[in-house]
Amino acid sequence: MVKVTLPDGTKKECKDTLAASVVTGNTKEDLEILRHSAAHIMAQAVSRLFPGVKLGIGPTIENGFYYDFGLQHGLSEEDLKKIEEEMFRIIREDLVFKRTELPRDAAIKKMEALGQPFKVELIKDIESDTVSFYSQDDFVDLCRGPHIHRTGALKVFKLLNVAGAYWRGKETNPMLQRIYGTAFFTQTELEKYLKFLEEAEKRDHRKIGKDLDLFSFHEEGGPGLTFWHPKGARMRNLIENFWREEHFKRGYEILYSPHIAKINLWKTSGHWNFYRESMYSPIDVEGQEYILKPMNCPFAVLMYKTKLHSYRELPLRWGELGTVYRYERSGVLHGLLRVRGFTQDDAHIFCTPDQLEDEILGVLELAQFMLSSFGFHEYEIELSVRGKGEKEKYIGRDDVWDHAENALKIALDKKGLPYIRMEGEAKFYGPAIDIKVRDALGRGWQGPTIQVDFNLPERFDVKYVGSDGFHHQVVMVHRTVLGAMERFIGCLIEHYAGDFPLWIAPIQMRILPITDTHIEHAKKLQALLLSKSFRVECDTGNAKINYKIREGTLEKIPYLLIVGDKEMQDGTVSVRSRRKGNEGAVSVEDFIKNIDAEIREKR
Amino acid sequence: MVKVTLPDGTKKECKDTLAASVVTGNTKEDLEILRHSAAHIMAQAVSRLFPGVKLGIGPTIENGFYYDFGLQHGLSEEDLKKIEEEMFRIIREDLVFKRTELPRDAAIKKMEALGQPFKVELIKDIESDTVSFYSQDDFVDLCRGPHIHRTGALKVFKLLNVAGAYWRGKETNPMLQRIYGTAFFTQTELEKYLKFLEEAEKRDHRKIGKDLDLFSFHEEGGPGLTFWHPKGARMRNLIENFWREEHFKRGYEILYSPHIAKINLWKTSGHWNFYRESMYSPIDVEGQEYILKPMNCPFAVLMYKTKLHSYRELPLRWGELGTVYRYERSGVLHGLLRVRGFTQDDAHIFCTPDQLEDEILGVLELAQFMLSSFGFHEYEIELSVRGKGEKEKYIGRDDVWDHAENALKIALDKKGLPYIRMEGEAKFYGPAIDIKVRDALGRGWQGPTIQVDFNLPERFDVKYVGSDGFHHQVVMVHRTVLGAMERFIGCLIEHYAGDFPLWIAPIQMRILPITDTHIEHAKKLQALLLSKSFRVECDTGNAKINYKIREGTLEKIPYLLIVGDKEMQDGTVSVRSRRKGNEGAVSVEDFIKNIDAEIREKR
Repeated sequence: MVKVTLPDGTKKECKDTLAASVVTGNTKEDLEILRHSAAHIMAQAVSRLFPGVKLGIGPTIENGFYYDFGLQHGLSEEDLKKIEEEMFRIIREDLVFKRTELPRDAAIKKMEALGQPFKVELIKDIESDTVSFYSQDDFVDLCRGPHIHRTGALKVFKLLNVAGAYWRGKETNPMLQRIYGTAFFTQTELEKYLKFLEEAEKRDHRKIGKDLDLFSFHEEGGPGLTFWHPKGARMRNLIENFWREEHFKRGYEILYSPHIAKINLWKTSGHWNFYRESMYSPIDVEGQEYILKPMNCPFAVLMYKTKLHSYRELPLRWGELGTVYRYERSGVLHGLLRVRGFTQDDAHIFCTPDQLEDEILGVLELAQFMLSSFGFHEYEIELSVRGKGEKEKYIGRDDVWDHAENALKIALDKKGLPYIRMEGEAKFYGPAIDIKVRDALGRGWQGPTIQVDFNLPERFDVKYVGSDGFHHQVVMVHRTVLGAMERFIGCLIEHYAGDFPLWIAPIQMRILPITDTHIEHAKKLQALLLSKSFRVECDTGNAKINYKIREGTLEKIPYLLIVGDKEMQDGTVSVRSRRKGNEGAVSVEDFIKNIDAEIREKR
Repeated sequence: MVKVTLPDGTKKECKDTLAASVVTGNTKEDLEILRHSAAHIMAQAVSRLFPGVKLGIGPTIENGFYYDFGLQHGLSEEDLKKIEEEMFRIIREDLVFKRTELPRDAAIKKMEALGQPFKVELIKDIESDTVSFYSQDDFVDLCRGPHIHRTGALKVFKLLNVAGAYWRGKETNPMLQRIYGTAFFTQTELEKYLKFLEEAEKRDHRKIGKDLDLFSFHEEGGPGLTFWHPKGARMRNLIENFWREEHFKRGYEILYSPHIAKINLWKTSGHWNFYRESMYSPIDVEGQEYILKPMNCPFAVLMYKTKLHSYRELPLRWGELGTVYRYERSGVLHGLLRVRGFTQDDAHIFCTPDQLEDEILGVLELAQFMLSSFGFHEYEIELSVRGKGEKEKYIGRDDVWDHAENALKIALDKKGLPYIRMEGEAKFYGPAIDIKVRDALGRGWQGPTIQVDFNLPERFDVKYVGSDGFHHQVVMVHRTVLGAMERFIGCLIEHYAGDFPLWIAPIQMRILPITDTHIEHAKKLQALLLSKSFRVECDTGNAKINYKIREGTLEKIPYLLIVGDKEMQDGTVSVRSRRKGNEGAVSVEDFIKNIDAEIREKR
């Protein structure tokens, strides 16, 4: 195995071989070699179809590959098909991937001669004396390899879409066209993946969010700033209320802090020095600079410091649904998942070193409870600790670190949670636990994080009076369970494909009177259900009942309650459950009893 | 009666007389003449005690008067006593207030000769040719009068305190010392007023907020930015939850919108042109300017405009607890009552003109319900309409204005609410209802406001499809009920003097075990009460029971529950109610039943 650097700068371990024989599809590396070769074949096809194309980079990514092309012609769906056809031609030609090496200067000259300025730029950044190339037929590309032996070894691939991408990700650089594709060893695997893509697209929270009228973004307001419409806001409020209740039950209290603070506060906290890239430019107020908050922590610290705390008062668990603003390039914004303003479900725990283990246990228990309440039952846990022999990279005393790392480890062990220990992955200011949750499609989402912090208590001199009467530095834990309301709800939408469980569905039920003569009865029923705090609408439109049912179904409303003559007479409703189908006539009393239980149990 | 201008520039109607005989104390004007004369006597006393003092202005204000002095010596409490003594001396001398007039230039020369630069500045701003002075003995002051005839007519006065004040309120001007005082016709009135001041001082929300650990302000964060501590945040959250529930019940929905938006949005809304003084300086994001929001309205408008609305969908009632930031000079900030960031309990109603009356009725009903829930039962209402013959000052069609003014009037009449019609007090964009509430001390606080707006629907082209199939401009109503969480809670603190009703008290009860042997039982009781969602603490400290009771009383906790041997045996608690005193032993069951009712009924 050798460590190779892909053209995008990422490093990975690969088998040091050119032989197609080893690329069997049994390992992740084999699949990457296949996909990287597919990227070369795609570049060759594009070069044949569009002579003069400027080649950028073409790495593998999770689930596939891409290649960036500098091209005047805007690539269409139609072009992707033509490129696929040309790729199949190249595969049929069964060309050999040939490796050659050139001294750096000769390599630069070669690429200049071929009219490939991006490749010239890449070579100039390479530090070694010789540079390797791979070629098939007359197509040659700067590459470290390895590759499959012949183009014929690629059997199963698909080009997916094309998107704009700045050369090297810099907005001041030229915009290239990036073609995404994927490749597999078997047709079955490809079909399974395409099915997954189709399902993921159907679940896209941006589409569902629009269809269900949950939220919007506005160019007039600014990209990455979420406008929560009534239904989305209702859902968010239900989740926030649940979050607060569960926190209060566990001895948490809540805070509210401002959205701006003087720049000096961020200098004291260190954010201005170490986090400035994510912070917005200052606002001037009476000659003082203020910054929109990227984090809530310094506010909690100032509140803690309004009085002297005794060890008897600790732990203090202070939560805040705090809206923070962080600068992200507009190009990387993505629906609710990557935004510029978001509301963290933040909390800061101030405790003594002895209390740390119990506090971590408490957070893990809360995190498990919250995640399972939202239907997430699978997750992966990472424990990030210091690297061996790199102690100078971290702030805080050695024994304090050992104690904290140990407390996190013991808490995880006590909960019986499997985890991966990530040596050297701790931030400079303390060890952490990160939990990734798996959604209904098996995709991973960033979930709870628990971060011990030795830095802020040091910078702000945050103390407590110990049982010995002396002042000691407090241990501070930052934690989020859901992460941010925006990202979490985006994830929930995709997890449930918009089919929300009853307890968080913005509209829980809609009454559908069959004709106008049933409207009065339907309205009475609505009033009854509203008085029991259900979220219920009444469709008094003059459309046919089947149309009303279709509408309600499209809006993914958990229960449609049809009322006609029979139901009026019998005191029933005909229940259409989104999950269980047509349940027929049910007495109103029984219906209420059933959904009460469904809501209480968060089914 | 003549219109006179006081030195601070305010105008008022006064009796045109110098005769003390008319100043009987029967009218508001008489009291003002008395107090203004007291200000002159105070200035005379200060001039005698501190020769060379530079005189600023000395107007009357609500409940008293002040005078600004330019003086090197910092005035102390002790000095105020000396000044009072000197004032009594001047009163005993029974000096006559003499009016004289001088041409403007001669007046300036006179004041220059007397070394009074502030007076010179004032005279230079006076437009008339002659300037009047009042003098007692050798003390002379620029003044339009009128005054009492002789200093001896002032019998009852008191100097209250001294504070810094910039000359003419400008921060670039020299800082003067302002002495506040008051005067009455009878000793009884003065004593009543001093009692009121004492009570108001005890209720000062800044003091109680600190004592009860509800909130803080931090120089490091920035003035006027509230940090809500756990107890204050809990109260705020209880109020917000109540607010949302009551709004949902009345067909409101909620929104969440961002705290910043591109400057162009504020240009479209007109805020950038007409409200810029209250807005913060722009933040630069990728070459675009963003502004911290001073209002929530444009966000609601953009959300409304994400789709075409039919008249069938209206009215839409969209509420938002939206945190806005407005620039206020640091000098005018005052606790929670005047801040730079605050959370409005905002709502925007989008309706047809025909629906306006019912919507206003609904808001009035909601406002009455909310205010009475917080113990406010007295208020004054103003209806602001256009001035006669000034139609060109207002935007929007004449018939639309008539219709809206009429709708507001009819709604008030239907509710049987008395109001004052304020001709010419409407904003340029629509008529409004403003409600001022009276607190326990009889002081007025700005309460609900209901504002019809013809401007934003015009600027943003906000339409609905009418029953005629045509597009019509929507009617937009802005309204707040509580105003802002910050100011409202500040007002609540002063209204209740921190003795909050059970349903919003951050800590509802505290269990006090008499000795260590009762702690276990007390903890069980706490768990029971917590499981019923009461906010209950347990004092496990090792202090004596009387000390624990005193502590709980100081923290104004509604119920203190004492448990000792007898209570453990009998399954009771000894209840100390903050409002009803010692209630003796009550069974735990009965206690829960009683407080349940107290909370439910918001007593």
